[in-house]
Amino acid sequence: MPFRKVAIIGLGLLGSSVGLAVREHLSDIKTCGYDADADVRAKARELGLCDDIAESAETAAHDADLVILCVPVGAMRKAAEAIAPGLSENAIISDVGSSKERVSRALAETLPDHTIIPAHPVAGTEQSGPEAGFASLFHGRWCIITPPVGADEARVEKLADFWRGLGSTVEIMDAGHHDMVLAVTSHIPHLIAYTIVGTASDLEDVTRSEVIKYSAGGFRDFTRIAASDPTMWRDVFLHNKDAVLEMMDRFLGDLGAMRDAIESEDGEAMFDLFSRTRAIRRGILEQGQDDARPDFGREHT
Amino acid sequence: MPFRKVAIIGLGLLGSSVGLAVREHLSDIKTCGYDADADVRAKARELGLCDDIAESAETAAHDADLVILCVPVGAMRKAAEAIAPGLSENAIISDVGSSKERVSRALAETLPDHTIIPAHPVAGTEQSGPEAGFASLFHGRWCIITPPVGADEARVEKLADFWRGLGSTVEIMDAGHHDMVLAVTSHIPHLIAYTIVGTASDLEDVTRSEVIKYSAGGFRDFTRIAASDPTMWRDVFLHNKDAVLEMMDRFLGDLGAMRDAIESEDGEAMFDLFSRTRAIRRGILEQGQDDARPDFGREHT
Repeated sequence: MPFRKVAIIGLGLLGSSVGLAVREHLSDIKTCGYDADADVRAKARELGLCDDIAESAETAAHDADLVILCVPVGAMRKAAEAIAPGLSENAIISDVGSSKERVSRALAETLPDHTIIPAHPVAGTEQSGPEAGFASLFHGRWCIITPPVGADEARVEKLADFWRGLGSTVEIMDAGHHDMVLAVTSHIPHLIAYTIVGTASDLEDVTRSEVIKYSAGGFRDFTRIAASDPTMWRDVFLHNKDAVLEMMDRFLGDLGAMRDAIESEDGEAMFDLFSRTRAIRRGILEQGQDDARPDFGREHT
Repeated sequence: MPFRKVAIIGLGLLGSSVGLAVREHLSDIKTCGYDADADVRAKARELGLCDDIAESAETAAHDADLVILCVPVGAMRKAAEAIAPGLSENAIISDVGSSKERVSRALAETLPDHTIIPAHPVAGTEQSGPEAGFASLFHGRWCIITPPVGADEARVEKLADFWRGLGSTVEIMDAGHHDMVLAVTSHIPHLIAYTIVGTASDLEDVTRSEVIKYSAGGFRDFTRIAASDPTMWRDVFLHNKDAVLEMMDRFLGDLGAMRDAIESEDGEAMFDLFSRTRAIRRGILEQGQDDARPDFGREHT
């Protein structure tokens, strides 16, 4: 067992999944959870998400040799402040945030005397809250660990072992590069999805009811990630601003080029792009990063 | 039975699904299929997609009281020319194309003495070809019929009955309005998906292998529709240019506004949009237009 006691701060989709996954896969590790919302704590007790649910972050972190912050990235600093008084000297402080550079800095500034090893399991669903978690969320998914310069390798390896234990494959990466990669594989897709769903809601010549009825033509795919937690995603865009803007400008440039191709009826440019994009889908299926059944395996009954 | 013999011209995902669905649900109707590609015809015979597979469009259409053109919208005029010599005087000519105004015009010009009643079943998967079809594709999906002005109501109703028989719910709509609605619920989503997958493939600071590995953060959702048939989609954008450009410009305006919100760190504007968009997802699930399980019901094993 890499750890004896893991504290989970924040019991939404990710925190609750960590709790359930530890029980399922690493049952010798004791878990203690905390959430700032009393209703969430009550629900977590009812659902048995952790061995214990504490009444303060400080108590949850007490004696833990691994503390995982599972709060929106904008709440990381405050969560780090709250656990500080309870921390053991040797505890590893980690997190599951979707952006890493600013989070790492916030944690290092708040807890300068502790071992900070940020991480990001690239896994989730559009649902949120303590009832959304499940033990197999991390199976076959990547967990990216972004150790600060000079981090103790043995301790990084302990954290990597923990995530492997939950079913993930671990990759070590620089925080800045992580933020660039995730801007394109996660943040921009969410921003696009939120925006097109907003555009479709606001039309005058097409009603909202029509948008819903005929969504099976493709639009419904975007509504899934546009149903994700608003606080979490606001924080991601505020915390990964530079990489998101850089990727956004490339996307806007490419979209402008496709707009021009349509306007000038340049079928060849369209055909070229539409043919190239199949290769990426094939790679994703070959590497088991998506359900290979047609239509994501949606039921057609 | 609304019809005695249905000819299916084009045996890709849609044509093969119509063939299988007729056998499953309306088995008294005889089906005769044709595809311009000899390999597809051979595969269609092997799979038993229709009662008969003809060696020419003209032969397939012979004696049919309903002919459904299931070819890319850019190939509709040619398909109509090919069936012309075989058509019975009373045959209804329909199609399954994703854009309707230009297709209607092409069919009316090519077959001025016949009854043209265009239709669009809003259903599909990202797969294509004769092996991609299945009998339940149209279950619970909308089929939009766009009769020309002055169409015979009894004949429109016969076509509606046919689609209801395959499991669809039918809506009658003006072709121009159809093209506006589908621009937002289907065409723009496909264009966005193709474009972001292209953008991600062309980056220098993030490798294609990284894009694939970390696609579970949201990007993989877009790769599904970006794996759709390139010819079909090129034709859609060429044939629904005006509505697509209009919707595209609204989306580009909204995306620019979100870009500005990120740049100026306007968390409130983001939170507002990200909260509003959940309602549309809820509507889609309530109306059975998507799989209500988290993550589209993808397997997490």
